[in-house]
Amino acid sequence: MAQPTVQTIIDALIAPVGPLEQTVDTLKSGDPSMPVTGIVTTFMPTQRVLEEARDRKANLVIAHEGLFFAHHDEAGEARGGEVYRVKKQFLEESGIAVFRFHDYPHRYKPDAITEGLIRELEWGAYVCKHEPAASLLELPRATLREIVRYVKKKLDIPHVRYMGDPDMLLTRVGVLVGYRGGAATAVTLFEQEQVELMIYGEGPEWETPEYVRDALQQGRRRALIVLGHAESEEPGMKALAQNLAEQYPGLPVHHIRQQSLFHFD
Amino acid sequence: MAQPTVQTIIDALIAPVGPLEQTVDTLKSGDPSMPVTGIVTTFMPTQRVLEEARDRKANLVIAHEGLFFAHHDEAGEARGGEVYRVKKQFLEESGIAVFRFHDYPHRYKPDAITEGLIRELEWGAYVCKHEPAASLLELPRATLREIVRYVKKKLDIPHVRYMGDPDMLLTRVGVLVGYRGGAATAVTLFEQEQVELMIYGEGPEWETPEYVRDALQQGRRRALIVLGHAESEEPGMKALAQNLAEQYPGLPVHHIRQQSLFHFD
Repeated sequence: MAQPTVQTIIDALIAPVGPLEQTVDTLKSGDPSMPVTGIVTTFMPTQRVLEEARDRKANLVIAHEGLFFAHHDEAGEARGGEVYRVKKQFLEESGIAVFRFHDYPHRYKPDAITEGLIRELEWGAYVCKHEPAASLLELPRATLREIVRYVKKKLDIPHVRYMGDPDMLLTRVGVLVGYRGGAATAVTLFEQEQVELMIYGEGPEWETPEYVRDALQQGRRRALIVLGHAESEEPGMKALAQNLAEQYPGLPVHHIRQQSLFHFD
Repeated sequence: MAQPTVQTIIDALIAPVGPLEQTVDTLKSGDPSMPVTGIVTTFMPTQRVLEEARDRKANLVIAHEGLFFAHHDEAGEARGGEVYRVKKQFLEESGIAVFRFHDYPHRYKPDAITEGLIRELEWGAYVCKHEPAASLLELPRATLREIVRYVKKKLDIPHVRYMGDPDMLLTRVGVLVGYRGGAATAVTLFEQEQVELMIYGEGPEWETPEYVRDALQQGRRRALIVLGHAESEEPGMKALAQNLAEQYPGLPVHHIRQQSLFHFD
């Protein structure tokens, strides 16, 4: 097989969905006709990840989020100042291609990012229902404390934030990756699907957590685990690396994982 | 002085700004002509706060956020299900008036919520500039570790999340309450005002924290402390209680503080 180009790989990635008219998933830097020497998948294409891609001689980075600290590139470029300019220059000098892979995997059926998280948790057998923005599971009954410990261990994350009595027994669980923790999705699932525990990446603090607080005060069985945005979506990008390695056996494929953004103190 | 009514107190609260045409700051429950027996100020009018107000015979709750886990009441009411109905019924039976005080204090000059936080931190003497959505300070040079410890102690909060080398020496600080941690405000200040440490309530994880991560990787002096939305705005509502107690010496005025939403583990 001839060495695939950047565009060949992009075409294969978007094929299960078909081209979207409006999407942030574009080639952010680099030449689409360039033969690919190696692939890096990652959640966030940080300065460090780009440097590591160069050091590993991988010239295609497939990243879930954007380059410049914003969902929409123009806004990020306009305000990113010196940090933007240095990163942009690094990209131009290195010639690394960066493709954003955000909207497409979320439209795979089921959502490839959600699926990656559930696979990493080894909870695939417990899925009752995949909705577009959430998956509903029936876990073997366990306490919140046990689930928190299990999730931290399986995902290898040092800290989570959670709500609810650690001794509460739970079975009906909703899993929402990324910034899907808002009330429109999460509170609706709590109320309409009798979800007991919501596990999400990130969401506004004044919505779902405040619903959970009032529900607990009213004596209801409700709990919440907030993983962090990156922590919830990183397994999906790791699974992508595994798939690409199978698809392109001649190409080195790496998943580069970030340290957690925050120190907890 | 005659016992003030709910409307009298609202009128005095909005006077420094003048009536806004579009605002979420409305009377959410209760009768505006009711004589006030006692006032509770709080960040979030939770089920527990409302119960405590009733127990303290305070029939006016002044809250920064809304009743039903949403910035806009209609959305919250539509999806809040049983939790909404029980809380709504409690309000009707208790007759407690709930006034939201969000947009007005943010338009006080300077922003009364930001001012409350800076006062609680005893940093008033270090303010260089008040912008509408941020205040800029020059603190006596201190390490990030020292500032994290100081902030936690002064605000009496058990945990914060932060980024940066704990030994980094810092002086130029930006303070942003509530959900002002987005890149449009915070990254712009980092770049245009040479802010070294941003302290904010809440913001999207893929914006400002990712800017800080790349800036650190590029060797720049940048740090971030994320207080929590409630933790950043609660001091402003506490300061309001102090002001109201001076203004209405015949009325019992209480500030009810919440426990932090999350367990950190």
